[in-house]
Amino acid sequence: MKKILIIGCGLLGSSLLRRIQKKKIANKIYIYEKSKSCIAKIKRLKLPGIIVKRLEEGVKKSDLIILCTPMSEYKNLILKMNKFLLTKTIITDVGSSKLESSKIIKKFLRKDVCWTQSHPIAGSEVSGPEHGKHDIFEKKWCVLIKEKSTKKKHLSMLGNFWRKIGSKVVVMTPEKHDKIFSMTSHLPHLIAFTIVGTASDLEHDLKNDVIRFSASGFRDFTRIAASDPTMWRDVFMNNEVAVLEMLQRFNEDLSYVQKAIRKGEGEKLYSLFERTAEIRRSIIDVGQATD
Amino acid sequence: MKKILIIGCGLLGSSLLRRIQKKKIANKIYIYEKSKSCIAKIKRLKLPGIIVKRLEEGVKKSDLIILCTPMSEYKNLILKMNKFLLTKTIITDVGSSKLESSKIIKKFLRKDVCWTQSHPIAGSEVSGPEHGKHDIFEKKWCVLIKEKSTKKKHLSMLGNFWRKIGSKVVVMTPEKHDKIFSMTSHLPHLIAFTIVGTASDLEHDLKNDVIRFSASGFRDFTRIAASDPTMWRDVFMNNEVAVLEMLQRFNEDLSYVQKAIRKGEGEKLYSLFERTAEIRRSIIDVGQATD
Repeated sequence: MKKILIIGCGLLGSSLLRRIQKKKIANKIYIYEKSKSCIAKIKRLKLPGIIVKRLEEGVKKSDLIILCTPMSEYKNLILKMNKFLLTKTIITDVGSSKLESSKIIKKFLRKDVCWTQSHPIAGSEVSGPEHGKHDIFEKKWCVLIKEKSTKKKHLSMLGNFWRKIGSKVVVMTPEKHDKIFSMTSHLPHLIAFTIVGTASDLEHDLKNDVIRFSASGFRDFTRIAASDPTMWRDVFMNNEVAVLEMLQRFNEDLSYVQKAIRKGEGEKLYSLFERTAEIRRSIIDVGQATD
Repeated sequence: MKKILIIGCGLLGSSLLRRIQKKKIANKIYIYEKSKSCIAKIKRLKLPGIIVKRLEEGVKKSDLIILCTPMSEYKNLILKMNKFLLTKTIITDVGSSKLESSKIIKKFLRKDVCWTQSHPIAGSEVSGPEHGKHDIFEKKWCVLIKEKSTKKKHLSMLGNFWRKIGSKVVVMTPEKHDKIFSMTSHLPHLIAFTIVGTASDLEHDLKNDVIRFSASGFRDFTRIAASDPTMWRDVFMNNEVAVLEMLQRFNEDLSYVQKAIRKGEGEKLYSLFERTAEIRRSIIDVGQATD
């Protein structure tokens, strides 16, 4: 890659910037960012890259375009880019769900250009360019999405790019991706948002006590539930089917434990609690317990 | 305190041992532990304290007795201790729920001795004496339970003890305690256990992928859900009313987000997700975000 355009310079966009610069992965980096406060931060932080005012400036010049915006922006951006895209340009993104965005891309993107979706499994509960880190992708998975229309050459070029960024690359279909991440990421976030919402609706005094004495458990949930609202709204809007399916299963299991508590069936709870420790051990075994 | 008996030498019991020794809080520490494998570990680790074989040995000699066992052991231990307890001895415990255990204590403990309940807000997903740490209570809250029958003198002596251990002490009723911790600790654990249970019931291939790609969110939940099964079974058996009430509220809120996803109502999700970030900021403000 000689020239890379990053569209949207928040946590992930600015982390990419920093990494590309540090590892000299491109000769030139263009940044397109519509938020004025973000641009001010980028300048204040002296982040690398050339800020382009009009999207077409960056689009025309770049070999690789990476969308790091909320997924709800894709359609508009595609419509704006279409006129200026070169057929040789590779387009990708860092969105957290893939099936619905694949439909948007297929529907609106010019047919003679290629968008191969990426999902680097990296992030944080804080957002904005000031929180980006050059090593945020280091040793983390990056999923590349393969569909019927996907070009092998593009998969291979993107694979090389993400490996230079520091990620471990894996290829899968959008269906499989959305199912796995509905369980590992989307449902846990939904539940964390919900329980913290439940707490924030408590009577005034109790709510203050919950904050004051927040213990491990709730505290972890609040960290998860502090994640970017726009990004997460888009995730649930774009992975409805898989999230609702997992939520249904979770609801059934929750009714089971609720009934066990009500009926005082300690042995049922014990056997569930014993089983869950095994999953933790498996995660430690595969080296994913890096929290 | 000159002589302290610790009953149950797992994570918290052994952490107390270490701290009492390090800060020279007692002249003698007795340990009563019924698990042979725990005793072997205590000896191997050369933890301080005298292991007593019969409970009465420690009970007769101690000014302070601290139960660090699962709450389901309290009744049996009380029945065993009753005959040997001196009226001047202070008894306490480290259990995570208080209203039901207060009933057990009132029902079975000899009427002329005093048990003032404590709940140090400290713990870990790992258990056993090998994981104890002398500073596990440092700057953490310790709740002392005040009921009608509680002696001021005992509250004050226990307050001093826990402050020497390193805790910040707060006094409240068992009702208030159980309500607060049903939200900050019990419900989040229940939900974490449940969702990890849901994942462990997934079809073989999907389950393996969930483990392999477990991301922030699910990974945090597995850590929480790796906590000691006996201890947590006892928590839910002993705080049924408050946990079921909070669970009911959570369920209502979960139905709301489920419906919002199904109906594609992004603005409802966004406004919830924005609200939850405020709670996180409050927790950071009160200095409780120590994860």
